[in-house]
Amino acid sequence: MTGPRDIEDLIELMARLPGLGPRSARRAVLVLLKKRGPLMAPLAQAMAHVALTARDCTICGNIGTGDICPICTDDRRATGEICVVEDVADLWAMERTGAFKGRYHVLGGTLSALDSVGPEELRIPRLVERVRDEGVREVILALNATVDGQTTAHYIADALEGSGVQISSLAQGVPIGGELDYLDDGTIGAAFRARRRV
Amino acid sequence: MTGPRDIEDLIELMARLPGLGPRSARRAVLVLLKKRGPLMAPLAQAMAHVALTARDCTICGNIGTGDICPICTDDRRATGEICVVEDVADLWAMERTGAFKGRYHVLGGTLSALDSVGPEELRIPRLVERVRDEGVREVILALNATVDGQTTAHYIADALEGSGVQISSLAQGVPIGGELDYLDDGTIGAAFRARRRV
Repeated sequence: MTGPRDIEDLIELMARLPGLGPRSARRAVLVLLKKRGPLMAPLAQAMAHVALTARDCTICGNIGTGDICPICTDDRRATGEICVVEDVADLWAMERTGAFKGRYHVLGGTLSALDSVGPEELRIPRLVERVRDEGVREVILALNATVDGQTTAHYIADALEGSGVQISSLAQGVPIGGELDYLDDGTIGAAFRARRRV
Repeated sequence: MTGPRDIEDLIELMARLPGLGPRSARRAVLVLLKKRGPLMAPLAQAMAHVALTARDCTICGNIGTGDICPICTDDRRATGEICVVEDVADLWAMERTGAFKGRYHVLGGTLSALDSVGPEELRIPRLVERVRDEGVREVILALNATVDGQTTAHYIADALEGSGVQISSLAQGVPIGGELDYLDDGTIGAAFRARRRV
């Protein structure tokens, strides 16, 4: 026994969060217990509120508090460009750059024969529908540079063939601040093949 | 912007937990968003419940769900021995060992001139009261082996002088599994001075 049953239950649930193990979950709960008023109560309330209101956007799969997410309802964002991402985390990462002003499409994963994830599980048919119905000019595939990510990108490119839409993907090369000595051979090779005139 | 305002607020609150920074808090919230039913809702509920019911034991300062904690109400635990700890975390750590079957007294910190923490902030007067009223035979000072911890231990020993109670403290020495080569000189010196015949 370490604490009362209720507190043990809370620690167990907290330990399921990524980045927290049983020990750090216990430490987090102790801090919460010490700051019951200023931190624990507001956190519980914020979490309950989001758990209740958050839902997947029926158009793009982003998470918002209504049936349609803030990005899909934002008139100022171009409708002719769709950036396809694997996950909401990737959408947030793209948004932080501020580089893209169009709409998104969140797949919710990558194709994976091992985990038997097919196109239907990934909102790919919905993407094909959107490209057809929304007058999309360009689909940008912002998928992870992993085997599964690239397989999915190829599949989507194939699925959109004949729709007349332009398909592009993120450039591959040396990351900003990257040192060649620490980069893998694949990245250096890709950067060399995609070299640009200065 | 990364997500809707409510979700941003939740991430900000989560980032105040120890062991989570802004990035890992965002990652944790994304996992919560994906597992709204199985994880987020129960976690929010457990947290709200504990925030509402948890309180400091009026006798020992441990955290329980009533005015008096489970340890203080447990008749099977010896009343003649009080183990003085700095924090509820330390009480839990002691309980996990199963080595101690008496009652506790949680100070809630250590004396610290820098942070102007005096004896009154630390439930030390309450400890003196308990020793007088509860017929205590032994007070075990299980305080951290830090300067502040040891200063506090000395102060408590002084405060209890003349009460006739036996005062002891945790043994200092080589930790189980510890390698001399990796231990600091102070620990090795203390272990040498406290050497035992085998």
